[in-house]
Amino acid sequence: MGVLPWSCRCGLNPTPSKNRGAPARPPPPPPAARVRRSKYTGQSVRAMPMRVLTVGKKRSQGTQLLVEEYKEKLGHYCDVEDTLIKSNPKLTSDVKVQIEAEDASMMQQLKAEDFVVVLDENGKDVMSEQIADLIGDAGNTGSSRLTFCIGGPYGLGIQVRERADATIRLSSLVLNHQVALIVLMEQLYRAWTIIKGQKYHH
Amino acid sequence: MGVLPWSCRCGLNPTPSKNRGAPARPPPPPPAARVRRSKYTGQSVRAMPMRVLTVGKKRSQGTQLLVEEYKEKLGHYCDVEDTLIKSNPKLTSDVKVQIEAEDASMMQQLKAEDFVVVLDENGKDVMSEQIADLIGDAGNTGSSRLTFCIGGPYGLGIQVRERADATIRLSSLVLNHQVALIVLMEQLYRAWTIIKGQKYHH
Repeated sequence: MGVLPWSCRCGLNPTPSKNRGAPARPPPPPPAARVRRSKYTGQSVRAMPMRVLTVGKKRSQGTQLLVEEYKEKLGHYCDVEDTLIKSNPKLTSDVKVQIEAEDASMMQQLKAEDFVVVLDENGKDVMSEQIADLIGDAGNTGSSRLTFCIGGPYGLGIQVRERADATIRLSSLVLNHQVALIVLMEQLYRAWTIIKGQKYHH
Repeated sequence: MGVLPWSCRCGLNPTPSKNRGAPARPPPPPPAARVRRSKYTGQSVRAMPMRVLTVGKKRSQGTQLLVEEYKEKLGHYCDVEDTLIKSNPKLTSDVKVQIEAEDASMMQQLKAEDFVVVLDENGKDVMSEQIADLIGDAGNTGSSRLTFCIGGPYGLGIQVRERADATIRLSSLVLNHQVALIVLMEQLYRAWTIIKGQKYHH
């Protein structure tokens, strides 16, 4: 058996390192030194209306409650709209046809004036401060709405991917689309607290 | 203004690329080619009891509902325990003292026979399949329980970090600790479906 890909004190590691049990990266510097900022922190940023487009059936109650919670928090900063696009509108059993139908439905929702951010596992890996940058950048483009697109269980189609003004990923993990929505909503709220230089309220 | 760190069709990008609007990484190969597997997929893996230790006050209703939902799903594969450690037991206003007190409380919960996985923003970036590997690896160590530790709003203390048998991170984003718990629970369920070679139920 090879070396485990994480530090391990289980005895299976054939060359126990002095660092066993230590974090995989060096310990972080003290909080004061590692405060990261968005380039827009403390600057005036245009509070464009936001819309989150998701594909799916009815959400679980827990997901819906959390989405409402973050919508309310985000509402202090900008208008937020939450649009659920019907999953598999053609009621097909062919995954490819399903993806194409959902893709077409989502394209119908996108207008020329939208700044479109697509969430995709092949997108750019971002930190929270970069989501704040993205909101600030989008505000400088002349777009009139910032729209985030999350695909259904089988992901997004090619038209929406090509329409994207930015493509990001939330994690290296494959996230359930409802969980991805929760993570996104929390990050949008966090991004605004970063821009405004405010304390994050847990 | 420099080049935006994501592909952009807003006109701010001084050297518009042919790839504007395209994903930041090359498009993924077709699904058939990119099926990733855990090294344990289809193998028998010891279903060690799992415990998730979190620090905090009362969770939001949405979070609790989602935790219960995934606990039930995970319960088909292994025993799952969800332990909430009291936040700031010394009721101090000094963040350092708070972290140390929470660290000590969490250490009291950890036994010698625990395989301890710490979630930390400086940990190893993992894919879902590697969480499946981690569960399989832990089952081969002789440990009798697999324990995941999530810190409170100010993160984990040094004792727990040093006690870790593995340190992973769920995202490059800074996640609220309740959101981190939801992501973890979903990944543990996903990991077991990967190990068992089963369809993921949304």
